[in-house]
Amino acid sequence: MTSAAPRPSFTLRSLAAIVGAHLEGDGDRVVTAVAPLDTAGPAEISFVLGARYQAAACASRAGAFVAPEGITGLPGPVLRTASPQLALIRLLEVFHPAEPPAPGVHPAAVIDPGASIDPSASVGACAVIERGAVVRRGATLFPLVYVGADAEVGEDATLYPHVVLRERVRVGRRVVIHSGAVLGADGFGYAQDAGEHRKVPQVGGVLVEDDVEIGANTTIDRATVGDTVIRRGTKIDNLVQIGHNVEVGERSILVAQVGISGSVRLGRGVILAGQVGVADHVTLGDGVVGGAQAGVPSDLETAGVYLGSPARPVMEAKRIMAAETRLPELLRRVRALEKRLEDVERQSEEPRG
Amino acid sequence: MTSAAPRPSFTLRSLAAIVGAHLEGDGDRVVTAVAPLDTAGPAEISFVLGARYQAAACASRAGAFVAPEGITGLPGPVLRTASPQLALIRLLEVFHPAEPPAPGVHPAAVIDPGASIDPSASVGACAVIERGAVVRRGATLFPLVYVGADAEVGEDATLYPHVVLRERVRVGRRVVIHSGAVLGADGFGYAQDAGEHRKVPQVGGVLVEDDVEIGANTTIDRATVGDTVIRRGTKIDNLVQIGHNVEVGERSILVAQVGISGSVRLGRGVILAGQVGVADHVTLGDGVVGGAQAGVPSDLETAGVYLGSPARPVMEAKRIMAAETRLPELLRRVRALEKRLEDVERQSEEPRG
Amino acid sequence: MTSAAPRPSFTLRSLAAIVGAHLEGDGDRVVTAVAPLDTAGPAEISFVLGARYQAAACASRAGAFVAPEGITGLPGPVLRTASPQLALIRLLEVFHPAEPPAPGVHPAAVIDPGASIDPSASVGACAVIERGAVVRRGATLFPLVYVGADAEVGEDATLYPHVVLRERVRVGRRVVIHSGAVLGADGFGYAQDAGEHRKVPQVGGVLVEDDVEIGANTTIDRATVGDTVIRRGTKIDNLVQIGHNVEVGERSILVAQVGISGSVRLGRGVILAGQVGVADHVTLGDGVVGGAQAGVPSDLETAGVYLGSPARPVMEAKRIMAAETRLPELLRRVRALEKRLEDVERQSEEPRG
Repeated sequence: MTSAAPRPSFTLRSLAAIVGAHLEGDGDRVVTAVAPLDTAGPAEISFVLGARYQAAACASRAGAFVAPEGITGLPGPVLRTASPQLALIRLLEVFHPAEPPAPGVHPAAVIDPGASIDPSASVGACAVIERGAVVRRGATLFPLVYVGADAEVGEDATLYPHVVLRERVRVGRRVVIHSGAVLGADGFGYAQDAGEHRKVPQVGGVLVEDDVEIGANTTIDRATVGDTVIRRGTKIDNLVQIGHNVEVGERSILVAQVGISGSVRLGRGVILAGQVGVADHVTLGDGVVGGAQAGVPSDLETAGVYLGSPARPVMEAKRIMAAETRLPELLRRVRALEKRLEDVERQSEEPRG
Repeated sequence: MTSAAPRPSFTLRSLAAIVGAHLEGDGDRVVTAVAPLDTAGPAEISFVLGARYQAAACASRAGAFVAPEGITGLPGPVLRTASPQLALIRLLEVFHPAEPPAPGVHPAAVIDPGASIDPSASVGACAVIERGAVVRRGATLFPLVYVGADAEVGEDATLYPHVVLRERVRVGRRVVIHSGAVLGADGFGYAQDAGEHRKVPQVGGVLVEDDVEIGANTTIDRATVGDTVIRRGTKIDNLVQIGHNVEVGERSILVAQVGISGSVRLGRGVILAGQVGVADHVTLGDGVVGGAQAGVPSDLETAGVYLGSPARPVMEAKRIMAAETRLPELLRRVRALEKRLEDVERQSEEPRG
Repeated sequence: MTSAAPRPSFTLRSLAAIVGAHLEGDGDRVVTAVAPLDTAGPAEISFVLGARYQAAACASRAGAFVAPEGITGLPGPVLRTASPQLALIRLLEVFHPAEPPAPGVHPAAVIDPGASIDPSASVGACAVIERGAVVRRGATLFPLVYVGADAEVGEDATLYPHVVLRERVRVGRRVVIHSGAVLGADGFGYAQDAGEHRKVPQVGGVLVEDDVEIGANTTIDRATVGDTVIRRGTKIDNLVQIGHNVEVGERSILVAQVGISGSVRLGRGVILAGQVGVADHVTLGDGVVGGAQAGVPSDLETAGVYLGSPARPVMEAKRIMAAETRLPELLRRVRALEKRLEDVERQSEEPRG
């Protein structure tokens, strides 16, 4: 029975100052929310992230716009900025300030007496925290989270409902882990023994450095020995699989449903689009970019874009894809060539005048 | 220590009436269960969904069969019907009547005093329901479900164990969500800022209309602003990823492991087979069908079947696949042509008689 | 506030005896842990699983090595063995003995009075076990596990946190199921009825035989009628989808993100690498191996390796892939042929001397 919070409201002048934009138009106009171009009304501010949105922007009923240089003819005041994405981030932060849950442990959480929870941390109902686990200052554990024995949750980290950290998994500062993600399940390792698959014990850990974000239902397996490592600033989307003993370099981007096999090494700033697969023991150099659904069977050392399965440098891959489109035509042309050549051959075999 | 429920039993005559089929054979015969062709015994009724099952049906020991016209030589009485699928649905409903859990909130559920639960709803043990959430008439929340602040669960909806609805997610009437599905995790959006990935706050929601079904461990991200929308009657399989600000049209079908990137628009009656990927901002028109593992990099407006990665109209794609099979042969033929042409050229260069 | 367990320590002589290896070098040397080649120090033993690790082994600071014949020049004593994988398994078991949780039911678990839990089983906090469920001797259910009505958990089985077994799912002896896996969600089956998708009730079950391992966030759907079956000794990785009425044969291997559609039959010893998809009703014979990202649209009866989408026998697939690489060149060659042939044709049309 709680009533909704009062809506915030800001003049365009104050918003321009907050986001560091140049105001074009009526600075006294007041807006109360951020909305997309197609649904925004006169009391809302919208945003134009690039030229592809020009038409939608001109048709919008929004009361004001955030836009980069080069977007013109907008039907309202404009907060002009070189980086509309960063301005949008500021706007959203201003209109939707984070509301951290109150510190403290919910009475329905189950905390082992041998766990250590900082008093400033927040632990929700039915969260279970095992012996030896450490939850540091300002961390937020939503309800139904599981933190295994001797695991560590860093300062100001956020674990959404149903996250699982198995034993000894370590998570750094400001790490965000979305619901259903599982860190530290056993790596997938077996040895053949008289026709049976014998399990190789997976006794290593998982180390997630600071400022990493991990998507919903993503799985990151613990190492056989040593650690599976996600370096600082890397962002991982939903339903991604990361095998045992993988190392993902700093500030990489792994889009949804990517699969990284065991013992892969990704360099810094690697970007893998949706559904990319990387075979075991492969190394990708700094700045390698894999296009959607690419399959990477072997090392790619040079920065640049790779497409297809098997993944090839973008120009080569595009030439092949273009040629594939012409394959049926090519078959016909070769058939025609064969026929014409036969005619020529027959002719030249004829006794000459 | 509960004893099993008594098995139901029906005469074929009564079953024929219930499913609206024409009875061929002994109407007094009694069956007690529905079973597949290969395991059914004389006390069970089985079903023949199409001609591909003719041989298995003739070899079956089932005591009776549901079958369409054209399936003949069956070793038992037949309930003949134009739509064996719909008849099977009725049979299964009759032999396995739904047993809705008793209404009421389990004492081990954790309900915020600011949440609103209809007295006819059922809430299982260790379910956690946050402030402002609304659970409507007849809804079933299995144990360990999480319903975030201000989220809404529609009438007669079913949330299986370990479903997560993050804050403000809205779910319509008769929606079924399977275990481990996560609705409303943050969309995957970052802006580049001095070499770092800065998170774009994801403050929008998720709206799931009536009669949608969502598979196990599927993820549907909340919108940046506005809503990610799943329109009425759409069915989504397991492990599907749906990015932020996507709209999936009415009565669409998304098979397991499909990945839909951010801001995609799917029309009505779209069918995407297993492991299809759709790139961000792409629009698929009404009635577009994507074959398994297809990759869709750009808009497909016309209804019809598309295959391959990149996805192409079915006839074009099949011609290309057929030509690929002949590629090694084509290489040989071109090599032979080159050789023969050289001979011809050499000959024609020779001084003529 | 628990102190870490004392580190185990072993002489190389005793380890050689334990793993059944031939010792080369100082048998009195003591090691206290197993570590990977790149991080192992003088007090640790490392392992060389094959020739690809020769260089890394020679550069390692490890105090001893497990290695097969043919790996020479190692900078320390060697435990020589024909099967370094099996020796590694023994070493890891010795240095990391399993610590089964204490038997008994945690007071915060929620057990229906009609469930049957063996006194030797361990059930963690906030686990929920429904009416009629059976948990057998030595089974371990971690916190937050859900076991549905009439489900069965076999002897010495392990269910990690957040596993879901829906009603009537049966799991055999020594089965290991990792966090977030969902067994028994409804299969994906609908019939068309006047433009709507009508749900086919999924009233069958799931049967998992002995010694199966199932990865994190994997989904195995219940059968429409009958059972979805995973035969003994099969190992399934993370995020795998297995549809209704599938049968997976003995000792098969399904790597991460594999998708198996409904009613598929896999033989014994089938191996499917990452992201493979198999279409519905397809049968794969014993010993079929599908390469990463393969797509299998139809039956493959003969044992052997298949690659690509659509999957083809490995030699054929490799020839096609190699030819694809040369496609742009092939286009140029055909163009050149056409030009040269035109010249020849023109010439031969000229009146002859």
